Amino acid sequence: MRFSRYIVPTLKEDPADAVVKSHRLMLRAGLVRKESAGMYVYLPLGWRVLRKIISIIREEMDASGALEFLMPELTNSELWKQSGRWQLMGKEMIRIKDRNGIEYALAPTHEEAFTSVINSLISSYRDLPVNAYQINTKFRDEIRPRFGVIRSKEFIMKDAYSFDIDENGLEESYQIMRKTYRRIFERCGLETIPVQADSGNMGGSASEEFMVASEIGEETLLICPSCGYMANQEKALYKRPAAHEGQQRQIEELREVSTPDVKTINELALFFKCGAEKFLKSIVYLADGKPLMTVVLGDREVNEQKLKNFLGASELELASDDIIVKVTGAPVGFAGPVGSPGIRTVFDVSVRDTFNAVTGANKKDVHYSGVNPGRDFEIQEEADITSAMAGDACPLCANAMNEKKGIEVGHIFKLGYMYTKAMNVSVLDETGKSITPIMGCYGIGVNRTLASVIEQHNDEHGIIWPAAISPFDIHLVGLGKTTEEASLVDEIYNFLNEKGYETLYDDRKTSPGIKFADADLLGMPVRITAGKTFFKDGEIELKSRSTGENIKVKLAELPPAIDRMLGR
Amino acid sequence: MRFSRYIVPTLKEDPADAVVKSHRLMLRAGLVRKESAGMYVYLPLGWRVLRKIISIIREEMDASGALEFLMPELTNSELWKQSGRWQLMGKEMIRIKDRNGIEYALAPTHEEAFTSVINSLISSYRDLPVNAYQINTKFRDEIRPRFGVIRSKEFIMKDAYSFDIDENGLEESYQIMRKTYRRIFERCGLETIPVQADSGNMGGSASEEFMVASEIGEETLLICPSCGYMANQEKALYKRPAAHEGQQRQIEELREVSTPDVKTINELALFFKCGAEKFLKSIVYLADGKPLMTVVLGDREVNEQKLKNFLGASELELASDDIIVKVTGAPVGFAGPVGSPGIRTVFDVSVRDTFNAVTGANKKDVHYSGVNPGRDFEIQEEADITSAMAGDACPLCANAMNEKKGIEVGHIFKLGYMYTKAMNVSVLDETGKSITPIMGCYGIGVNRTLASVIEQHNDEHGIIWPAAISPFDIHLVGLGKTTEEASLVDEIYNFLNEKGYETLYDDRKTSPGIKFADADLLGMPVRITAGKTFFKDGEIELKSRSTGENIKVKLAELPPAIDRMLGR
Repeated sequence: MRFSRYIVPTLKEDPADAVVKSHRLMLRAGLVRKESAGMYVYLPLGWRVLRKIISIIREEMDASGALEFLMPELTNSELWKQSGRWQLMGKEMIRIKDRNGIEYALAPTHEEAFTSVINSLISSYRDLPVNAYQINTKFRDEIRPRFGVIRSKEFIMKDAYSFDIDENGLEESYQIMRKTYRRIFERCGLETIPVQADSGNMGGSASEEFMVASEIGEETLLICPSCGYMANQEKALYKRPAAHEGQQRQIEELREVSTPDVKTINELALFFKCGAEKFLKSIVYLADGKPLMTVVLGDREVNEQKLKNFLGASELELASDDIIVKVTGAPVGFAGPVGSPGIRTVFDVSVRDTFNAVTGANKKDVHYSGVNPGRDFEIQEEADITSAMAGDACPLCANAMNEKKGIEVGHIFKLGYMYTKAMNVSVLDETGKSITPIMGCYGIGVNRTLASVIEQHNDEHGIIWPAAISPFDIHLVGLGKTTEEASLVDEIYNFLNEKGYETLYDDRKTSPGIKFADADLLGMPVRITAGKTFFKDGEIELKSRSTGENIKVKLAELPPAIDRMLGR
Repeated sequence: MRFSRYIVPTLKEDPADAVVKSHRLMLRAGLVRKESAGMYVYLPLGWRVLRKIISIIREEMDASGALEFLMPELTNSELWKQSGRWQLMGKEMIRIKDRNGIEYALAPTHEEAFTSVINSLISSYRDLPVNAYQINTKFRDEIRPRFGVIRSKEFIMKDAYSFDIDENGLEESYQIMRKTYRRIFERCGLETIPVQADSGNMGGSASEEFMVASEIGEETLLICPSCGYMANQEKALYKRPAAHEGQQRQIEELREVSTPDVKTINELALFFKCGAEKFLKSIVYLADGKPLMTVVLGDREVNEQKLKNFLGASELELASDDIIVKVTGAPVGFAGPVGSPGIRTVFDVSVRDTFNAVTGANKKDVHYSGVNPGRDFEIQEEADITSAMAGDACPLCANAMNEKKGIEVGHIFKLGYMYTKAMNVSVLDETGKSITPIMGCYGIGVNRTLASVIEQHNDEHGIIWPAAISPFDIHLVGLGKTTEEASLVDEIYNFLNEKGYETLYDDRKTSPGIKFADADLLGMPVRITAGKTFFKDGEIELKSRSTGENIKVKLAELPPAIDRMLGR
């Protein structure tokens, strides 16, 4: 492709509104243009990369035995009503009504649509397993779109749904997808961290996210450098550092302390001259409408996802002051477990290990100090309901864990029976008995895969494309000043085309400095320069964008040199 | 692909709700499933065909020099307001408001979006010409979706927009697209008729539709079998058959005839004992709010598109009875041109050639007979404002034309300056002067291209795919009864895969009759059967789906025989 006939609007300066590296580089290299908040136009160069990623995904999904479909993006509300999600899905789901009054969702996901069509296509255990996928546009009405294409309102997703006759089958389908995802991201040149994750409102038992470590990641990962345990903070098991257990314990008496005007954990820590972890914090929730008290250490917050999972609750909200007073009998801010208020109480697993703690005394302006579990209150229900943090013990090997921020590029779930049961999917088993298939679902964010590759592959000069998804193999820079010289470079271009290399040929009448800067910014794996030494001695210069290696060869020697730099 | 691992839900019977051949066959061959009214799921086999069509379109568009983009499907209302179409587009355009109150259209077309982004990318005449395209989903809230994927609410379209510095440039871009479209449809095996068309509310000067002749077509084409003139009825030039002119003319006196209770053209024809073409019908319109009388022959209707074009009007509506009475001074049903009522009157070109006609006498229950133009009224404005019909004279060679129904699969327009002016697009010309680029736009309906291919390529047994877009090259039918026989067929399958043929391998444990019927229904170009003669003598049977040719060869001789049947 000749640069002069292509549209590559490179920018010298960083665009003002792009705060993230990949976003800045995508704008500067002319891959995308913003249309409006959360909406991007893919320019020819960006679309080429996206299509290469799509091809890799398609090849690997096909190789895994999955079958490609294409679903309508407008999904009928009837489907969502069958699963119960028409109500459950929040404002992120865009709903429309057509001129005949039929309601649709602009699909943010396709569980219902796939479950419905697969249901119409299967009748026997012999029809299973099926893994059906598509690569299609999804919509999400983000309240705050950000980071360029990483969190946008409209994006391309690969979503797959597996149907198996039993849990063993699902486990097999799940493991195949796990391997497939690893291969897909590897081929894209993307280093991902597979972490245990919570299944959220998708319903289901096991789930794993493929994360790309990045300072702009919106998810927090806990990683054990010793044994390799990795989990999303929503899911990571929480264990206080073992050091706690070794402390000398001189058990104190339970004591009422007057604490007027001492309210926050920080104020209490100053007042009692101890760390925040010495406080037992009581938080009252309504779980599916029923009141419930939780007790966690003062330096932690309740992890609501873990709490919901423990309770099996679908809705969780903080109780209002009225309700707190009513159900605990204590003024707001002074509820505590001592004296067993008549309310169901869930203690975090870390509470059992505390001693001489401080907690509200269920009276205004009074706290207890010297609080000891077992002696001063009973722990009847306990669960892991706080988030693990850096420095916490690894649940597997007990060594201290690290925290990293990550971007989620893929997610695999064991969905279980939620959709197949709600939508009455059944097949006959070997004995002629009707059984309900079990589902898995598997997503890849295509646009954010692209952005994540750039997050991982760049330097101060621009993008450094992995060869497999680079928009072109070669960036050919022609430095001819005369018509004769220009036509000599044309010959190299024709030669490269004949040999099957995808070549972006900078044939512009502009300075070498601008051309080299653009070549670095655009980041094709191999830069080929035809300048003075070529016009004089026929020596062509090759430079690897990733290693910086610089060599000179004759025309006939180009292909093996290029192939080596491309890693072929 | 093994049939047993694939999803091809063939149906023996025609589905009840499918009235069109292509729709029936797409459902019966398991290419699509209906999700809801006007919404279709593409099953694996159908999606394979659609992707092959998309690949052909992409290859030919790229070869033409066009550049591929991807635009958001949700287009910001601001874009539509700039062009003025936010108001103009009717209920077919689906509009939504996001949670921040921003309005979008689910794009039915992308003139505004492309004009806006191209505007941000060009600044000089050197940047032109540009032809930018995408292959993307479009939405149209059809009041009555029908004919399967031919008229659906959501569909895939290839849309391209060219920008040139002047009309000569546009003509060149237009002609390149014309050739490209011919190649695309040819490669898809589709016989199309390029017809002159009206540009409708797209604004613009020239336009051509690529039609597929079909009894279910929603457009009427006029075709001259003598000289090859072809046009959409909306656009076709109208000329009364030459025979008219040769008639003996005995000019009668103008005469008032009392016609109580004689109202319709049919009743008048019986009363006056003459053909409907002897009547001059007067119809009153409001064109952009201004009253106007039109006069056409009694056997024709006003072609409102032609009338709008002649007037340069953007809105045209029939006048109410009140207005008719007020502006013509005649009772409803009795207005006529004799006596020149004080209203602008446009005569169809055919009126001049009438003699001894009948028309309303501008009085209740009275008509004039013996009406003759020139003598009884003046023709001050005349234009071609009726539709041509079968039997009318060809505007080029004057021979009688035929009518055909057609499906529009492609459309190319010269748009002119409508969008570039409204959206303030400009570039500097060679002298540094700011000029407005001129646009063309070019669409292909991808899904209806698929359906049209089936409309043209089928027989009573099923689909007959053109090789270039067939989901698979080969349908391999294995008739082994034992494990050994089955594994011998597996070897053929492996051999075909190694040789690079796309093969659907019917490995099901079902009767030969069912397998052959499915092979005919699915319509791959080459059927290969491994049955008795193969297991005994190693003879493999090949059958061409299109010609019915049936031959037997040994394994090693397969590739040339297949290639010949595939036309390679």
